[in-house]
Amino acid sequence: MLHADPLPQRRAIAKAITLLESTRADHRAQADELLTALLPHTGRSFRLGISGVPGVGKSTFIEALGLHLIALGHRVAVLTIDPSSTVSGGSILGDKTRMEKLSVHERAYIRPSPSSGTLGGVAEKTREAMLVCEAAGYDVVIVETVGVGQSETAVASMTDMFVLMQLPNAGDDLQAIKKGVMEIADLVVINKADLDADAAMRAGSQITSALRLFGLVNNAMGHAQAEDFDRQWQPRVLQLSALHNRGVDAFWTTVTQFQALQAANGRHAARREQQALAWMWERIEAGLKNAFRADPAVQACLPELSRAVVAGQAVPSAAARQLLGLLFKGAA
Amino acid sequence: MLHADPLPQRRAIAKAITLLESTRADHRAQADELLTALLPHTGRSFRLGISGVPGVGKSTFIEALGLHLIALGHRVAVLTIDPSSTVSGGSILGDKTRMEKLSVHERAYIRPSPSSGTLGGVAEKTREAMLVCEAAGYDVVIVETVGVGQSETAVASMTDMFVLMQLPNAGDDLQAIKKGVMEIADLVVINKADLDADAAMRAGSQITSALRLFGLVNNAMGHAQAEDFDRQWQPRVLQLSALHNRGVDAFWTTVTQFQALQAANGRHAARREQQALAWMWERIEAGLKNAFRADPAVQACLPELSRAVVAGQAVPSAAARQLLGLLFKGAA
Repeated sequence: MLHADPLPQRRAIAKAITLLESTRADHRAQADELLTALLPHTGRSFRLGISGVPGVGKSTFIEALGLHLIALGHRVAVLTIDPSSTVSGGSILGDKTRMEKLSVHERAYIRPSPSSGTLGGVAEKTREAMLVCEAAGYDVVIVETVGVGQSETAVASMTDMFVLMQLPNAGDDLQAIKKGVMEIADLVVINKADLDADAAMRAGSQITSALRLFGLVNNAMGHAQAEDFDRQWQPRVLQLSALHNRGVDAFWTTVTQFQALQAANGRHAARREQQALAWMWERIEAGLKNAFRADPAVQACLPELSRAVVAGQAVPSAAARQLLGLLFKGAA
Repeated sequence: MLHADPLPQRRAIAKAITLLESTRADHRAQADELLTALLPHTGRSFRLGISGVPGVGKSTFIEALGLHLIALGHRVAVLTIDPSSTVSGGSILGDKTRMEKLSVHERAYIRPSPSSGTLGGVAEKTREAMLVCEAAGYDVVIVETVGVGQSETAVASMTDMFVLMQLPNAGDDLQAIKKGVMEIADLVVINKADLDADAAMRAGSQITSALRLFGLVNNAMGHAQAEDFDRQWQPRVLQLSALHNRGVDAFWTTVTQFQALQAANGRHAARREQQALAWMWERIEAGLKNAFRADPAVQACLPELSRAVVAGQAVPSAAARQLLGLLFKGAA
């Protein structure tokens, strides 16, 4: 369906993704048809999520990794979820100067974050763009995000492996633990490890203890059976320097070990199935809320009722039932 | 509206709560009327949430606290959210032998967990029961829960102060940190501190560091202004022995300090307003999902579409749009 020659193909992908991102109802119907037609050709890439705070060196790392993967014969697509771009109207990560070598390579495709909508909407467009890239033959799709709000959870829920990038200092470890990001990481990478080898080493062992702790708690809470322990991936910490291209090959070796284990123990397929179902329900819930907020009768009463609830003049549950009654009055 | 004499009044409360818990549509309409009529007489109690794993000694503590409060002139209602009772069909916490002295006291009212429904439904009934108790003149309402699933978050979101009870050993601290319960605690109580004073001391200082850490991270993340620090409640740790009635008075002194500070800095009112609005939206979202699942057209297509999504034969977002289209076809 998509052209084999790199440049026209890239234009076809861009056009398809633009269609997916359109808010027009007729475009949406066309986009659903396109996605359904592409679906049999999707799913065969490895989906790699990468998260880290601004300044951690994501672009430098992804460029180094992308070029390494191309040298190994892969085709690499990079998609971005940047929640802040929905505020600023443009992606700060989307500037042309990022990933200079990778962005012009014929075996790579880089798409900045969709620039409008809620995080849920942006995540949906990115998931759909991922399917387009897979159908176009990219066999590694990298989804990157800055550590803002819930964007890490969104990325982890659409990828096969979730990597957290950290700087060699303790400050952002705390944030990652507090926000629960460390817990969902399959691999933690300490970048710029060359800047301060001692700090990187300390950070490495701190994070390793944290990951071990989460593993122990998970086991204690019955999420994993003891006999399965050896067959389960144990999250780990790697140190590297993306700028000096040190550790990038070791990183990919670790990723391929993860891939092999997850394929063997069935987690790869199970994670994909679970993600697909969760995605459907996430969109159903978002759609229900949108329909609720768009209903004229609800719009007429919601501000007044919200004020009454806040002022303690209306019972919240009764107010909810009243509003739902307005929405479903006309329904079957 | 409710009788002043304790025994008939208790019967009136029980009857009102039974009405609230009924699933019949006409009862629901009556219940909404009742709640709306009671609303002006509600909100003047102190709402205290208490959580802890089974065996931590919640019942012993709440009985000791309740009797202490009655001696101080208060009237005490105890409500329970036990998610496991929705599985077993009866509350394990509801047996008559619990809180023997408190349960027969004329200035106390104890109601076990609603025994059916989702956690959201159970929480809704408990919130509504709290309003009934407040209208009946109980000025301290204790909502207790076992640390199962999301029940702690539910209790924290309906109370003025959330207390986490811990045993003097490190194991459940980890769980509490991991599950994010420690973060929402305004006060951590180490019960059975007399059993092993050293362990209790160690646990106390560990938890104090954890709480301090969360405070620092919150500040770093801009949730609190530096100049507000002194005016903000700093979560703390208390040691007590409920069985020997040691530390119960110190506990209540701490609670009244919390109360005074929250009233002075405006957090008490702000928390109530936020909780009321969040409750309304929580019920709206639950109602939307219920309406979706109850729709005959959706019911006819959902199993097939879910299977197709899991099998990778349907695009999740397109499936979601198809199902939403079925629900809202008949709507205005």
